[in-house]
Amino acid sequence: MAGKKAVILLSGGLDSATTLAIARSEGFLCYALTFRYGQRHKREIEAAKKVAESVGAAEHRIIDIDLAAFGGSALTDASIDVPKDRAGLGEATQIPPTYVPARNTIFLSYALAWAEVLGAFDIYIGVNSTDYSGYPDCRAEFITAFEKTANLATAAAVEQKGRYRIHTPIIEMTKAGIILAGTKLGVDYSMTHSCYDPDEQGRSCGRCDSCRLRLKGFAEAGIKDPIDYMT
Amino acid sequence: MAGKKAVILLSGGLDSATTLAIARSEGFLCYALTFRYGQRHKREIEAAKKVAESVGAAEHRIIDIDLAAFGGSALTDASIDVPKDRAGLGEATQIPPTYVPARNTIFLSYALAWAEVLGAFDIYIGVNSTDYSGYPDCRAEFITAFEKTANLATAAAVEQKGRYRIHTPIIEMTKAGIILAGTKLGVDYSMTHSCYDPDEQGRSCGRCDSCRLRLKGFAEAGIKDPIDYMT
Repeated sequence: MAGKKAVILLSGGLDSATTLAIARSEGFLCYALTFRYGQRHKREIEAAKKVAESVGAAEHRIIDIDLAAFGGSALTDASIDVPKDRAGLGEATQIPPTYVPARNTIFLSYALAWAEVLGAFDIYIGVNSTDYSGYPDCRAEFITAFEKTANLATAAAVEQKGRYRIHTPIIEMTKAGIILAGTKLGVDYSMTHSCYDPDEQGRSCGRCDSCRLRLKGFAEAGIKDPIDYMT
Repeated sequence: MAGKKAVILLSGGLDSATTLAIARSEGFLCYALTFRYGQRHKREIEAAKKVAESVGAAEHRIIDIDLAAFGGSALTDASIDVPKDRAGLGEATQIPPTYVPARNTIFLSYALAWAEVLGAFDIYIGVNSTDYSGYPDCRAEFITAFEKTANLATAAAVEQKGRYRIHTPIIEMTKAGIILAGTKLGVDYSMTHSCYDPDEQGRSCGRCDSCRLRLKGFAEAGIKDPIDYMT
């Protein structure tokens, strides 16, 4: 396994930071991939840089993609409010306005392109369908369908040089479980950023879905969240 | 059907121009999507603009995506030669260096994002697996897998607002059949561009896979190709 390459989608949040640490612990040479996609919480890109360096990624690429051109999400359109203290958090039937159309499909497509050029067949994504916001592209059935697509889409797979595998090591973990696993692997969560709607000083709001899931996770893990909150 | 929106991937080549004309003839309001992806034959983007206007697209978006950052293709890396007079053209077992890793997966992902924001469920792509270069992401099994992925990836599908359909109207046509169908629909092929390696005046080489398939198609259709060739 040592020396085998993997592409890891890294947002700068705690899920993807933990996923990167898991990929490293499984012996992969990690190629981290981050997107500047017009998100209002650009601060996560700086977090991704720190995490990539700290966890020991072999390379870290930041790609500009303009999802804000299409709009349709509170994360890329300043005129749509990020919900705070939302009822229904954790209920999979309700998809909140922070959903970004086709985001993980686009992210995985880029990861696939880079993997094929690198000669890698392993892609890691920190999706989670337990303590999550109800996004459809975080579910196992989506990942399985994408993996099948990847193995039909690419020259490397068709020429049988290998089979692509989309790894989702934290998909069934609770947020507390993710934090405990990452802590054991030495992830420094003070470097990570989760808030959808931070203030100008970069402090987290504590009230968006992402902050609430994070705070609940740290509370359940019995660990103090090391980042700054507005309140 | 009238007034229903569809997203059409439009490269500026003759296949996608014909596909756009077919979508129009089927009554769709057409939202054409073109990518500036670092291709050496940038001229096709100007062709796409003319085609979109001429065929009557409701809107035409040109999106910048940097596939050249990853490399791995003769189309995005000037240090890799575009093959000329290649043996094996049309044999599906040989994938040429003009293959761009995960290109159609990325293009379809963006089309899906735009479709979801527009409230469209129909996406047209001019893939063709008869007179083609052997690219794996032009085959029906890839399209079927992507369609399945799209219906698992998106809020609009999960909330049962509709089901995404990837239309491939020319997938089983010969190049001559495509040209005849487009001619009947009034496509002006003098606006289209196919060559992978045009000269500075924009003339086509006549010897790359794309030119040869095009020239063979026009010859078999018994129509003179209206564009300029170097030789």
